[in-house]
Amino acid sequence: MLTIDINCDMGESFGAYTMGYDARIMPYISSANVACGFHAGDPRVMRKTVQLAKEHQVRVGAHPSFPDLVGFGRRNMVLSYEEIRSDVLYQIGALSAFATEAKWPLQHVKPHGQLNNMAMTNPAYAEAIVDAIAAFNPELIVISYGGLLMEAAQAKGLPVAYEVYADRAYQADGQLVPRSVPGAVIHDVHQVLERVMHMITHQEIVAITGEHLPRKIDTVCVHGDTPGADEIAMRLSSFLKSQNVRIAPLSPVDG
Amino acid sequence: MLTIDINCDMGESFGAYTMGYDARIMPYISSANVACGFHAGDPRVMRKTVQLAKEHQVRVGAHPSFPDLVGFGRRNMVLSYEEIRSDVLYQIGALSAFATEAKWPLQHVKPHGQLNNMAMTNPAYAEAIVDAIAAFNPELIVISYGGLLMEAAQAKGLPVAYEVYADRAYQADGQLVPRSVPGAVIHDVHQVLERVMHMITHQEIVAITGEHLPRKIDTVCVHGDTPGADEIAMRLSSFLKSQNVRIAPLSPVDG
Amino acid sequence: MLTIDINCDMGESFGAYTMGYDARIMPYISSANVACGFHAGDPRVMRKTVQLAKEHQVRVGAHPSFPDLVGFGRRNMVLSYEEIRSDVLYQIGALSAFATEAKWPLQHVKPHGQLNNMAMTNPAYAEAIVDAIAAFNPELIVISYGGLLMEAAQAKGLPVAYEVYADRAYQADGQLVPRSVPGAVIHDVHQVLERVMHMITHQEIVAITGEHLPRKIDTVCVHGDTPGADEIAMRLSSFLKSQNVRIAPLSPVDG
Amino acid sequence: MLTIDINCDMGESFGAYTMGYDARIMPYISSANVACGFHAGDPRVMRKTVQLAKEHQVRVGAHPSFPDLVGFGRRNMVLSYEEIRSDVLYQIGALSAFATEAKWPLQHVKPHGQLNNMAMTNPAYAEAIVDAIAAFNPELIVISYGGLLMEAAQAKGLPVAYEVYADRAYQADGQLVPRSVPGAVIHDVHQVLERVMHMITHQEIVAITGEHLPRKIDTVCVHGDTPGADEIAMRLSSFLKSQNVRIAPLSPVDG
Repeated sequence: MLTIDINCDMGESFGAYTMGYDARIMPYISSANVACGFHAGDPRVMRKTVQLAKEHQVRVGAHPSFPDLVGFGRRNMVLSYEEIRSDVLYQIGALSAFATEAKWPLQHVKPHGQLNNMAMTNPAYAEAIVDAIAAFNPELIVISYGGLLMEAAQAKGLPVAYEVYADRAYQADGQLVPRSVPGAVIHDVHQVLERVMHMITHQEIVAITGEHLPRKIDTVCVHGDTPGADEIAMRLSSFLKSQNVRIAPLSPVDG
Repeated sequence: MLTIDINCDMGESFGAYTMGYDARIMPYISSANVACGFHAGDPRVMRKTVQLAKEHQVRVGAHPSFPDLVGFGRRNMVLSYEEIRSDVLYQIGALSAFATEAKWPLQHVKPHGQLNNMAMTNPAYAEAIVDAIAAFNPELIVISYGGLLMEAAQAKGLPVAYEVYADRAYQADGQLVPRSVPGAVIHDVHQVLERVMHMITHQEIVAITGEHLPRKIDTVCVHGDTPGADEIAMRLSSFLKSQNVRIAPLSPVDG
Repeated sequence: MLTIDINCDMGESFGAYTMGYDARIMPYISSANVACGFHAGDPRVMRKTVQLAKEHQVRVGAHPSFPDLVGFGRRNMVLSYEEIRSDVLYQIGALSAFATEAKWPLQHVKPHGQLNNMAMTNPAYAEAIVDAIAAFNPELIVISYGGLLMEAAQAKGLPVAYEVYADRAYQADGQLVPRSVPGAVIHDVHQVLERVMHMITHQEIVAITGEHLPRKIDTVCVHGDTPGADEIAMRLSSFLKSQNVRIAPLSPVDG
Repeated sequence: MLTIDINCDMGESFGAYTMGYDARIMPYISSANVACGFHAGDPRVMRKTVQLAKEHQVRVGAHPSFPDLVGFGRRNMVLSYEEIRSDVLYQIGALSAFATEAKWPLQHVKPHGQLNNMAMTNPAYAEAIVDAIAAFNPELIVISYGGLLMEAAQAKGLPVAYEVYADRAYQADGQLVPRSVPGAVIHDVHQVLERVMHMITHQEIVAITGEHLPRKIDTVCVHGDTPGADEIAMRLSSFLKSQNVRIAPLSPVDG
């Protein structure tokens, strides 16, 4: 029986601001990437998100970011190794307090936004992130879509999980098609479901230009903040189950 | 042989801003209250502060605050139980990441500024702080100068340490003389040393109006951000040692 | 012909976070209270909000707050006169830059949330706000629901506008019924319309306990962030026009 | 008689944090670049800085930055034209409120740190800054050390002032020698004084490699946050006066 993890960014509300459909999506995923206050999330939101995840037996991980609330962590920033390492440690630790409180331990770390994207190609960024994780808990799984971050994690001996995006087109080199390019985001739900099923079954990505790129696929990322995200998560979950695919987190749930 | 802990607020620099004399005071204290980014401190400062403390075998604790950087946590804020509990958990967790990295575990929690002062008399504040600590690690010691915070900690079964201030005058009711009152702060170093020695030896506070107030005194707080703070810390340390008082953290150091 | 101003809080989105229904409500109001970045709003949001207001010939005013983004300015804070005066000046000035750019000058100032509420009874708060406004531009109108803020503004010679809330019940003393009390918020749209019409026509508030309180009513506040707020604004606007009430800002529009 | 402006970054303290020697340097300069809260400064600091400047008849200008308090605006950030334009407008406006209050109008704008440096070579950054200034007040002088920012300002018809750094070495292309290169910062005060005198007298920069680069030099920047900055400012002022150089702001003082 095929098994796959579904991960989704969660806990991105802040103060009086609501973002995403956490309560409606949580039933259909198995791993939640929880914002840690630097791009989104605040302590109360983090606490509730961890509790909600536990109720649904969804594993939680830290989703650390550049310190850029107004930019939602989506703007490139030039930080030193030392700054990134410290910022990532701070955020993982902050989330871990709520995990400890809930007796629902951290499973993984997935960097957010431009911190994640820059770590694909910037070795100092990749190493700062990986060194922070290793220093905190070398059993945390690094979720990544490849690049230097994944290489650095593997070199450091950290467990890694390769992720694919349910609704994003890929280039022939395995990178995501930039959002500015037509076809970058797949809006048709049927197509999304089929693509995910193909990727899981064949353990390969099919590029927008037709190339087949073999990958060991561990987790599928669904977006939580687009309109209809809950519908997509629900349908993906139902469809995969109907195809005899088991949805399970990266680490066994026995919490 | 008498034993006493000396605690001091540390790690209150932020970004390009330097505050305090951490490197010069650390050799003379035994417990460091480390700012967690809400009133002061940033991830890099926190990391360096924990490392510096370990080098000097000084125990570290979290120094959580209201979220008020521009006010340095010294302004009253009306927060809910839920907000305080979450904010305190977040800050303890963030600091704990650097403690974990340094393999130099957290010893204690001492709330900062007006969060601490309001928790003396506001039961929701006291309980929120204590519940956060208990949820994270019920072996963390709560440093307090009494009031509802100490009562709540004791009721919850948390270890507590009663602190006195080296350079602050006390009222007959055991509260600090407000800074606005003449005589509130003792500037004469000789007087500071004698007062501390008296408090440790006799396990009592002498109020500004002459009353003797018996207390089990566990730790003496020295201020780190006043000019000459390093000199005071150094002289207090020397003096106590010359009087055969051992300076040691609240928990044994076996790092 | 009766004339009334309708004011509404606007520009409370922040970064990636959307709040309110600005584009849908703007056509039905005559004065917009624009958030200035301390409780909500960011520079881009402020800029767009002023431009949107001008397109609809809606007058803009500053909506300054405590510096408390995560608490949305809804938490009491104890600040000094000097702090409040400086914070309010900063926010008015920041908004004025976008007003200058748009050639659509500021009309008024209406403090936000707990800054506004605390200024009802705290003289230092009321004076700090009023002194800040007077120092920036003594022709700015102070929108207030009474209390010390209005008194201080009048004493300083600033123009004032008395506001009533379309959907909030009043006590016999003219204060708002606290939200925690049943009946505090009026959800029935018909009732809202009739109440507003009564207040405008008779220039009086009717308390929840039946008392008639004469007031010179200059502006009606509608809430922009509740579900259905755009519907209420639209219906209030239509209804008032059908009753031969002219909706016009506090200052003439000839922009 | 030769006339020169001396400008210095001012108002970079924040909350409980003190930076620089504003009170000791203000007597010796003629233009103050006032931080606006994004990299440094807070509303109270801004207010006091403007008042202090006026007492010394020192002209004030806005010193806008990236929104990066923890990085002191010294980290590259990738922002859109729209973001930079809005951020700069916000900051100029905020400062202008204190200028209005003090009846001491703004003279200039000088971008801070990496916003300034990136605007030397990034046309969108240069134009966003210039368009913001022009939209607010096209009489504000843009202080710049050249590059695209100066070109954009001139193209837009804004008055510009070319600045040189008293204590920094220049490359043959007119750019500053990076701080990482030996000799980049001139520490010898005598040498600083002579260099400045040469630049003013001959209206040229002498590169570290010996080339003479003619420039119309309007203002000399002294650093305010290095140890001894007040001493340097005082000596530069005395020396220039002794050489019959008049120190005067870019715009006449008749305030």
